Amino acid sequence: MTGSSARVSDQTTQHDLLALQWPSPPRNILFVRKDDDTAVHDALIEYTDHIKATYPETNLVFEPYVAQQIHDRFSFPVYTVRESGSNVPYHAKVDLTTTLGGDGTILHAASLFATAKSVPPVLSFSMGTLGFLGEWKFKDFKRAFREVYVSGHPSVLPSKGGNADVTDGGSGPRADSMTGWSNIRGKSMGSSRSSRILMRNRLRIGLFDTSGERLPHEPPFAHQDNKCEDIFALNEVLLHRGKLPHLAHITILIGSPPHQRTLTTAIADGFLVSTPTGSTAYSLSSGGCIVHPLVSSLLLTPICPRSLSFRPVVLPANTLVTLRIDELNRGKEIEVSVDGVRRQQGLRAGMEVRVVGEEVRTQGPPGTRDWMGGVPSIVRSGHAADGEDHWVGGLNGLLKFNYPFGEDG
Amino acid sequence: MTGSSARVSDQTTQHDLLALQWPSPPRNILFVRKDDDTAVHDALIEYTDHIKATYPETNLVFEPYVAQQIHDRFSFPVYTVRESGSNVPYHAKVDLTTTLGGDGTILHAASLFATAKSVPPVLSFSMGTLGFLGEWKFKDFKRAFREVYVSGHPSVLPSKGGNADVTDGGSGPRADSMTGWSNIRGKSMGSSRSSRILMRNRLRIGLFDTSGERLPHEPPFAHQDNKCEDIFALNEVLLHRGKLPHLAHITILIGSPPHQRTLTTAIADGFLVSTPTGSTAYSLSSGGCIVHPLVSSLLLTPICPRSLSFRPVVLPANTLVTLRIDELNRGKEIEVSVDGVRRQQGLRAGMEVRVVGEEVRTQGPPGTRDWMGGVPSIVRSGHAADGEDHWVGGLNGLLKFNYPFGEDG
Amino acid sequence: MTGSSARVSDQTTQHDLLALQWPSPPRNILFVRKDDDTAVHDALIEYTDHIKATYPETNLVFEPYVAQQIHDRFSFPVYTVRESGSNVPYHAKVDLTTTLGGDGTILHAASLFATAKSVPPVLSFSMGTLGFLGEWKFKDFKRAFREVYVSGHPSVLPSKGGNADVTDGGSGPRADSMTGWSNIRGKSMGSSRSSRILMRNRLRIGLFDTSGERLPHEPPFAHQDNKCEDIFALNEVLLHRGKLPHLAHITILIGSPPHQRTLTTAIADGFLVSTPTGSTAYSLSSGGCIVHPLVSSLLLTPICPRSLSFRPVVLPANTLVTLRIDELNRGKEIEVSVDGVRRQQGLRAGMEVRVVGEEVRTQGPPGTRDWMGGVPSIVRSGHAADGEDHWVGGLNGLLKFNYPFGEDG
Amino acid sequence: MTGSSARVSDQTTQHDLLALQWPSPPRNILFVRKDDDTAVHDALIEYTDHIKATYPETNLVFEPYVAQQIHDRFSFPVYTVRESGSNVPYHAKVDLTTTLGGDGTILHAASLFATAKSVPPVLSFSMGTLGFLGEWKFKDFKRAFREVYVSGHPSVLPSKGGNADVTDGGSGPRADSMTGWSNIRGKSMGSSRSSRILMRNRLRIGLFDTSGERLPHEPPFAHQDNKCEDIFALNEVLLHRGKLPHLAHITILIGSPPHQRTLTTAIADGFLVSTPTGSTAYSLSSGGCIVHPLVSSLLLTPICPRSLSFRPVVLPANTLVTLRIDELNRGKEIEVSVDGVRRQQGLRAGMEVRVVGEEVRTQGPPGTRDWMGGVPSIVRSGHAADGEDHWVGGLNGLLKFNYPFGEDG
Ligand SMILES: NC(=O)C1=CN([C@@H]2O[C@H](COP(=O)(O)OP(=O)(O)OC[C@H]3O[C@@H](n4cnc5c(N)ncnc54)[C@H](O)[C@@H]3O)[C@@H](O)[C@H]2O)C=CC1
Ligand SMILES: NC(=O)C1=CN([C@@H]2O[C@H](COP(=O)(O)OP(=O)(O)OC[C@H]3O[C@@H](n4cnc5c(N)ncnc54)[C@H](O)[C@@H]3O)[C@@H](O)[C@H]2O)C=CC1
Ligand SMILES: NC(=O)C1=CN([C@@H]2O[C@H](COP(=O)(O)OP(=O)(O)OC[C@H]3O[C@@H](n4cnc5c(N)ncnc54)[C@H](O)[C@@H]3O)[C@@H](O)[C@H]2O)C=CC1
Ligand SMILES: NC(=O)C1=CN([C@@H]2O[C@H](COP(=O)(O)OP(=O)(O)OC[C@H]3O[C@@H](n4cnc5c(N)ncnc54)[C@H](O)[C@@H]3O)[C@@H](O)[C@H]2O)C=CC1
Repeated sequence: MTGSSARVSDQTTQHDLLALQWPSPPRNILFVRKDDDTAVHDALIEYTDHIKATYPETNLVFEPYVAQQIHDRFSFPVYTVRESGSNVPYHAKVDLTTTLGGDGTILHAASLFATAKSVPPVLSFSMGTLGFLGEWKFKDFKRAFREVYVSGHPSVLPSKGGNADVTDGGSGPRADSMTGWSNIRGKSMGSSRSSRILMRNRLRIGLFDTSGERLPHEPPFAHQDNKCEDIFALNEVLLHRGKLPHLAHITILIGSPPHQRTLTTAIADGFLVSTPTGSTAYSLSSGGCIVHPLVSSLLLTPICPRSLSFRPVVLPANTLVTLRIDELNRGKEIEVSVDGVRRQQGLRAGMEVRVVGEEVRTQGPPGTRDWMGGVPSIVRSGHAADGEDHWVGGLNGLLKFNYPFGEDG
Repeated sequence: MTGSSARVSDQTTQHDLLALQWPSPPRNILFVRKDDDTAVHDALIEYTDHIKATYPETNLVFEPYVAQQIHDRFSFPVYTVRESGSNVPYHAKVDLTTTLGGDGTILHAASLFATAKSVPPVLSFSMGTLGFLGEWKFKDFKRAFREVYVSGHPSVLPSKGGNADVTDGGSGPRADSMTGWSNIRGKSMGSSRSSRILMRNRLRIGLFDTSGERLPHEPPFAHQDNKCEDIFALNEVLLHRGKLPHLAHITILIGSPPHQRTLTTAIADGFLVSTPTGSTAYSLSSGGCIVHPLVSSLLLTPICPRSLSFRPVVLPANTLVTLRIDELNRGKEIEVSVDGVRRQQGLRAGMEVRVVGEEVRTQGPPGTRDWMGGVPSIVRSGHAADGEDHWVGGLNGLLKFNYPFGEDG
Repeated sequence: MTGSSARVSDQTTQHDLLALQWPSPPRNILFVRKDDDTAVHDALIEYTDHIKATYPETNLVFEPYVAQQIHDRFSFPVYTVRESGSNVPYHAKVDLTTTLGGDGTILHAASLFATAKSVPPVLSFSMGTLGFLGEWKFKDFKRAFREVYVSGHPSVLPSKGGNADVTDGGSGPRADSMTGWSNIRGKSMGSSRSSRILMRNRLRIGLFDTSGERLPHEPPFAHQDNKCEDIFALNEVLLHRGKLPHLAHITILIGSPPHQRTLTTAIADGFLVSTPTGSTAYSLSSGGCIVHPLVSSLLLTPICPRSLSFRPVVLPANTLVTLRIDELNRGKEIEVSVDGVRRQQGLRAGMEVRVVGEEVRTQGPPGTRDWMGGVPSIVRSGHAADGEDHWVGGLNGLLKFNYPFGEDG
Repeated sequence: MTGSSARVSDQTTQHDLLALQWPSPPRNILFVRKDDDTAVHDALIEYTDHIKATYPETNLVFEPYVAQQIHDRFSFPVYTVRESGSNVPYHAKVDLTTTLGGDGTILHAASLFATAKSVPPVLSFSMGTLGFLGEWKFKDFKRAFREVYVSGHPSVLPSKGGNADVTDGGSGPRADSMTGWSNIRGKSMGSSRSSRILMRNRLRIGLFDTSGERLPHEPPFAHQDNKCEDIFALNEVLLHRGKLPHLAHITILIGSPPHQRTLTTAIADGFLVSTPTGSTAYSLSSGGCIVHPLVSSLLLTPICPRSLSFRPVVLPANTLVTLRIDELNRGKEIEVSVDGVRRQQGLRAGMEVRVVGEEVRTQGPPGTRDWMGGVPSIVRSGHAADGEDHWVGGLNGLLKFNYPFGEDG
């Protein structure tokens, strides 16, 4: 990450939310938007115009194909990562990610950091209906961005530079000068407020063939250099029978050798290992319970199990869970998907998916603490200064949790 | 159906099971077996040898590819239906179907009658573990077949013939003579006992394109002449997202125009309309309740609905249920499967599946009553002379219904 | 029932709803209202004033304690049943019941007919929020009552009298003259419309002690003369552990001797046998599925079973279900409740509740058909002339069935 | 606690189980047994005889009424706590608790420490069927006790004494001398093995009246001196409608003022707040998911909620959860129970139950670490040296988790 990588403070009275602190202002801002939606596209233009005008030192970064579409709309250069030939990963260059779209857009943004142990903060906007992961309405984008930008009472520091490798998405020169917060100071309502961060744990996922060798992941989750390492997921990993309307057989093992133990064999449509964040996604539809994102855990949820007695299970996040494709599936491939993206190549009998909750740590002295692991999600602030606000609000307002019987007003 | 088509009597004290009555002995016996299983194949040989030796007037009928595999094992001719050029449907020729395999084999046998309003009785055997639909252990095959053959105190009548169109599966001449029950009389333990029949209702299913025109079904469910008529299913019809790990949108309408009404739009992995028989199949895995096969009803069960408030619904069997592929699926095909067989061609936005429970009627004076509709499943008899036996027994013995907690013996 | 007892016609195109037909206008109208609610009480006065003024031949009948409270508010006499000394049951006197309140009021009204094989039609109004059983908003009471009163194109017949035994709730003389529909003819919008009736099946419930002797029921369900006969329930019969926070053990048997068979022993908070009508009441809360009132069936739903594999079961309505208090409960009484009314005396080990769906029959030639069994519920009519209207509408509007995720408008 | 209070080490390779370490041998052993069971009583005698003979320095402690029943069976004195006049709590005197019975006995034993922030280790035996909480079969009691007694490679230290206040349950003199492990050394199989401990988190529960004042708890949970402090529960706290078959209204609030927020109002039979340990108890029956005891969390599970959309929720253990009796229950008391023991006095409208997961901490340098909070449960050791063993084994062996369909062996 660049020199302006965010830090967190846990000196907050609010339930386990962290406070965002920048050592220097965020500089390289990655914009991720939903595809094929004109309103979203127009909003993106409005958003980026504003950012560039108000925070001229920032660099605007896009995914290559978006940069391609968008670069001649601007008078200033835009940047991208992973152009052909390049193999600089996003997390090495991006200080802040901001999304326009729904939960799917946030998941996609997270997938760009699927090989990164440390992910920059995510500020997400939705255009219409709020998603469950998305925190801000687009109409508040100016206030929201400012709040994030100035978060953490920072002293005004000269830029440490260090983002030379960001590739120009179009053709223009690099925007290089940076003066920190000084030029926006006057506009600040007082830097007394820090943005609050919900650190969302991810899953660490590895695929293994029948001889225990690693299988490569596929884009967008793949490692730059195709090293077959683990990837990270925000919601879940899914094994599924796919299009064949017959039962899949998946054996679930718990723990690491030599303490590994068979939990059971699921005979089912499929099987999910989810994060608490993912507990309100697919797992919810499959009958899983709702787990607060701060409960350090993994959810095991079967999909349509041919059993009366398969209840969802919640394990400590540090449990290694192995899903082994059973011999009884011989001949049939089992589909594997991560956060809603299906791997082209399915898994055959004997292959394994190994999953564990990522370790989340903060390190360093209070106030200048860095974190490792987790997707730092910037939480909506509002009149209700309550840390639970957004999550309880989402349950009631979006998921219609325990929605009352009877006629509507 | 041939002249020896079975009749039923409802003059039974046992809960709603019917008694099987043949006007003359069943003559054309269709053997359906599980594929790719040597033990099953060997059992089939043993079974057919026994039948031909003991009931020489019977004709042994097989599916074409089985007849092909098997015909030179026998010294007597075997028959088949639907050879190339032929378009005689099974139900016009078969007096009794007998299966060797599991539930899947029974479903397959039923699919051969998917276009028939009247289905001959089914006597099913399993080799190993009993299925939930299958009633008899193979080791009892001699007793079971005899019991069925002599069911209903029949007077000995000369054959009425009338099965001339049954095609020889190999090359031999037609076995034609038939003397009724006379030659097995001596072996009868007394014809006081009738085989009991559980009449399993089916679904009637039509597919319609966006302009309301019928779409053809695909084999094995297709009509001989490719007339686009309704087909019948024993378990369920399934709509599913298939291999794409994204939500399907399916609108469910209830009733016939002009009284048709939208129940809801399911946003889900898929949606099931099941028979009570199918309530212990896929619907059970999706959280449906267990419905006794004699409750005249349809089950609506969503698969992984993105909703906290989608509870399975049970409707009267005579309700017309329409599943309409929603515009929100535009671009994606929704898979449709019947009794575990997927249609190659999926459904696109605006297309509909229309489902209603088939009407089951018995007609004619008591004792010589014919039936229309339903799959007459010959129920296992045993020491417990209870009609509920097999169903309650299946719940406890096979599905482990309310299986007690605690250590096993 | 009196001479003006209603008849039904099933000559209706609408799904299995019946059409109401009076041989002569309904005369004795039972008013049942929710207690302790001033608004309801005032509405009752308004309602009865209107009825007496518009349909002077009708007799207004109340429960004794209501008659007592209310009689001096009127210039005309009011009637009651079951005054001390009397043992005339409601169903012998009442032609039409009309309720003001919620579902609880309808259940209470039904309980007054808990010993009657034939129940007069019920016209129910709710003041505020509609219940799931209640069909009409009170503001429509004039139109609703008229529609019911003239239902079935009746020819104008002189009264057949025959309600002499209706007791005066206060002191006044009996209102006796009756001229049929003649005097309201002019006001009729044309008698082309029949009220539609949903016939709700009930449960028939008997209680038995350890030696197989009947136990008496308690008011309001008790028989007049305390004969220990079966009573009828509209929603369900409930067995429950009551206040002791320990598991109850209840054995469920299915079928009648000698074909009775043990389904299972529930180790649970309690156990429910419900009608389809009751499927949206307690059974729903316990995880039961939603069963349309016209599916002829019984629902078996455990309450908090100590089992992973106890799934709700739906049986044919004519199945005898026996709930036996297990010896393992020795020392503890199990509470028994019917439609939300708890019996003072609980049940001890060895005692049984026997339940079967009531038989519903219509008899006589079409057009003048009487029915036996069921609670004839007068369904709301509206612009949507659809029979499914009220039920599907209730699922969506009241129970928030599959209520969509996302922000409210 | 006495000088011999146990310590724990987390230097174990096994998943989050702790290792038991005694600074000096456990001296005061509390025996808790199931009541009214002769076999259990006889086993208790055998057990205590063996302990006294083999570990003569130990003091045998019983609940007063057990001591009363049992003391003249022994030649040595037995002790008790909380005799009349005494107000020494168990946790001040007991070094090790050992139970004979099932889960109920363990819960009862835990209730004796319901006011203690630090609980001595529990070694539990079952006579017949293992419970889910109970770890050892009684037949292994000699080996099990020895393993616990010598756990942690202790050096042989002279007794630090300090258990002078243990009251004699009968009449005999105090057993006072103590020589540590020396006299059993020879019998040791080598002290290389430590007993492994699963630290079970509890709930901290306070009751409050309408004006926010504390309400007292009742025995066995009450504080000695009737100080109205919080108590601890091992499974759950339950609010329930009790014997009245009508819905309870309970409002659930989350967080501490000023960040407290209403989650929802449950309209239900009742409501549970459970520990992960309790996830396999009542919560499981109410549809909750299975949560591993080491997931630091609270479970919110409604009982028969009148809602289609009330899904169980899992919150971080440090969340303050408030259950407020809603005004809509006016007139009716809501029953409150802790770990299966009902409080005589119910709660009325406006009263509150406040619940939070207890904080579990270990402190001190590795190896001599003390813990605060949690019930240290001594886990069965066996040939499978796997820490997950007992829990996964319990799911499969006892709860019949995902029990396979099909015929038994
Ligand atoms: N039957 C189901 O419920 C299915 C669910 N999914 C979920 O969809 C996710 C992918 O999302 P999209 O690409 O948008 O696919 P999509 O277009 O199929 O929509 C999935 C829906 O889930 C919501 N969602 C996603 N993550 C969520 C979370 N953590 N909490 C609450 N709601 C969440 C989205 O807002 C959207 O409404 C997968 O990770 C999986 O969890 C995918 C397939 C089927
Ligand atoms: N997740 C699930 O539960 C799935 C279930 N199925 C069911 O499988 C059926 C097709 O069967 P197969 O070809 O054997 O496929 P299969 O090989 O996938 O096995 C399906 C299983 O369901 C059992 N089964 C079938 N019908 C049943 C019934 N009416 N009651 C109880 N158990 C029943 C079979 O014995 C077998 O164990 C479909 O009609 C569908 O109901 C199909 C796909 C997924
Ligand atoms: N946990 C639960 O869900 C409980 C439910 N009940 C139900 O309450 C009924 C008694 O009703 P009340 O005297 O009003 O008691 P109540 O005041 O406890 O309210 C029961 C609720 O159930 C509704 N209800 C009643 N019958 C219904 C039906 N057939 N379909 C849909 N909703 C229905 C009522 O409108 C009311 O909202 C019982 O027959 C039982 O079914 C009773 C106790 C607990
Ligand atoms: N419907 C239900 O499931 C009910 C459950 N209970 C549970 O019973 C507990 C009290 O136990 P007892 O005094 O023995 O009452 P009990 O005699 O009613 O038996 C409760 C059952 O739950 C088991 N159990 C207790 N704690 C457990 C745990 N943590 N995990 C797995 N199984 C467990 C016991 O072995 C026993 O089989 C309460 O704390 C409550 O959790 C109490 C009432 C109703």
